[in-house]
Amino acid sequence: MIIPVKTSQFDYEIVIEKNCLQKADKYLNLNRKVLIITDSGVPEDYAKTVASFCKEPIIKTVPQGEGSKSLKVFEELQISLMENNFSRCDCVVAVGGGVVGDLSGFAAACYMRGIDFYNIPTTVLSQVDSSIGGKTAINLGKIKNIVGAFYPPKKVLIDVSLLKTLPARQVSNGLAEAVKMALTSDSELFEIFENENIENNIEKIIEKSLRIKRSVVEEDEKETGLRKILNFGHTIGHGIESFENLSSLYHGECVALGMLPMCSIEVRNRLVPVLKKLNLPTECKIDCEKVFEIMTHDKKTKGSLVTVVTVDKIGEFNLSDIPVSDLAQSLNMFK
Amino acid sequence: MIIPVKTSQFDYEIVIEKNCLQKADKYLNLNRKVLIITDSGVPEDYAKTVASFCKEPIIKTVPQGEGSKSLKVFEELQISLMENNFSRCDCVVAVGGGVVGDLSGFAAACYMRGIDFYNIPTTVLSQVDSSIGGKTAINLGKIKNIVGAFYPPKKVLIDVSLLKTLPARQVSNGLAEAVKMALTSDSELFEIFENENIENNIEKIIEKSLRIKRSVVEEDEKETGLRKILNFGHTIGHGIESFENLSSLYHGECVALGMLPMCSIEVRNRLVPVLKKLNLPTECKIDCEKVFEIMTHDKKTKGSLVTVVTVDKIGEFNLSDIPVSDLAQSLNMFK
Repeated sequence: MIIPVKTSQFDYEIVIEKNCLQKADKYLNLNRKVLIITDSGVPEDYAKTVASFCKEPIIKTVPQGEGSKSLKVFEELQISLMENNFSRCDCVVAVGGGVVGDLSGFAAACYMRGIDFYNIPTTVLSQVDSSIGGKTAINLGKIKNIVGAFYPPKKVLIDVSLLKTLPARQVSNGLAEAVKMALTSDSELFEIFENENIENNIEKIIEKSLRIKRSVVEEDEKETGLRKILNFGHTIGHGIESFENLSSLYHGECVALGMLPMCSIEVRNRLVPVLKKLNLPTECKIDCEKVFEIMTHDKKTKGSLVTVVTVDKIGEFNLSDIPVSDLAQSLNMFK
Repeated sequence: MIIPVKTSQFDYEIVIEKNCLQKADKYLNLNRKVLIITDSGVPEDYAKTVASFCKEPIIKTVPQGEGSKSLKVFEELQISLMENNFSRCDCVVAVGGGVVGDLSGFAAACYMRGIDFYNIPTTVLSQVDSSIGGKTAINLGKIKNIVGAFYPPKKVLIDVSLLKTLPARQVSNGLAEAVKMALTSDSELFEIFENENIENNIEKIIEKSLRIKRSVVEEDEKETGLRKILNFGHTIGHGIESFENLSSLYHGECVALGMLPMCSIEVRNRLVPVLKKLNLPTECKIDCEKVFEIMTHDKKTKGSLVTVVTVDKIGEFNLSDIPVSDLAQSLNMFK
């Protein structure tokens, strides 16, 4: 199945097909120099499979984890492209999760002011979420995604067979983003989470999530309006994530927690059982003041008002600008 | 006078007006946080004048010279934006030459994936050339402009009264780019150089050059075709510039030298007196093999062919792909 995506720069395709990694050359132009970027947590075979199709492959393996989304690793990648004499006609392929995708996309965006970028996401999180939308970035200090570019991939390959080696906690981590999209935009998708076997429906869940995200990012490519609904659960979620020092809780787990204060009681009563079914957290103890302080540094802050997304009815959302100080109250349920 | 420029992202205006710095607030939205980036070679008053119009100004002065187009200085700027809690609604203003413009534009392009960027070029070179076209970049190792973005400014202010403090050599440095544009595209402009007093015609020369460049970059924003004519003199020029270690010869001086082997004898016979009138070099001694080696790393290299621009008749150009090895011959006139 192919999902076409329109951007202001060019249109691209998301290919969703079991075992498509094994025929990457059918979908990607690899008859050139190819920098394949992966991380130490991704099975080596995946990058090697891509390399086997390339005319001139170079594999760069960065350490697993958010720490690789740094200016230092970014520089290493630029040097690697430069020292291997990559031209504007060559390309970068990301093989990994969101960290690898964000980092690789930004590296491709900046080298010679932009060379082709392909993304092969290998986690549920990156397959449902970060592979689409063209947002690339690295972190600086404690602030996530503060330095980056809007830079769409030329193609995305989604191969759900790559998920079989993924730990269960990582699967749930990604499904949290799919739950998020169901809550704001698709009650049918939410009912799959409520009523169906998740594992058997993973491809359907990914596809439905991508279709939601596609329609949002097509309408609001540069995050000036509608795209804010993708931040549902993220304002508080990012605060918790930064507080937890980017390590002990996964991104999706923080988003799961971040959604709870932003739902009506009725919605929360249906959300909590779904989160539990997915082994996602429904409560945690945080230092509310510290999290609040971190949140006010978050990129969604705009002067003294912050845009929040709330859900009163499953499949529908509200956007409102509230004083930053009001966010502090939302954190009280974690006291 | 206002020159409108179209880009795929948005349209912007170049304001050409004597003393427009003194009313920057008339043209720029400075009622927000403003990071004013300048360098130690620019009169302090210029940045201070801009700051006097800003709601929340921060002035950052980087060391003069190409060395500031580094990832290290780029990082310092990102940290400065972050620590001062700049949001997506704030902006960056460059007050300086091409180095400041390229660096500031790239910093604005990447912070939060892009905030508003205004450019106030203070040298002839940046007024005629680097202020328009949306190319931003930093250097890495010995390779110029290898890391960057296509990121247009929201507005450009060109105030020729700022040039009065500029050393004569810097004025000539900038005029070399204007001569370049005259050679490929405008025989009338070339005749001004041949027949008129340069100082009295500086605003006219800048305006005519900007109109040429505007039509080129509008037609070929991402440098896939026509824009290559702007590289006239630059393939060899960059080679000489890198060889000279980015210091002893100015960019425009290298371009002046780089144009000579790319002209017919008739054109060269008219070009040499113009370069001499402008105190630009018409000969130099270089290590041809080393310059050739540097040139093959240049971004205009594409596989084993390189696109070169030649001028057989003033105001007209030829584009052709030649083997990289042929470039070595062009260097022979510098032996």
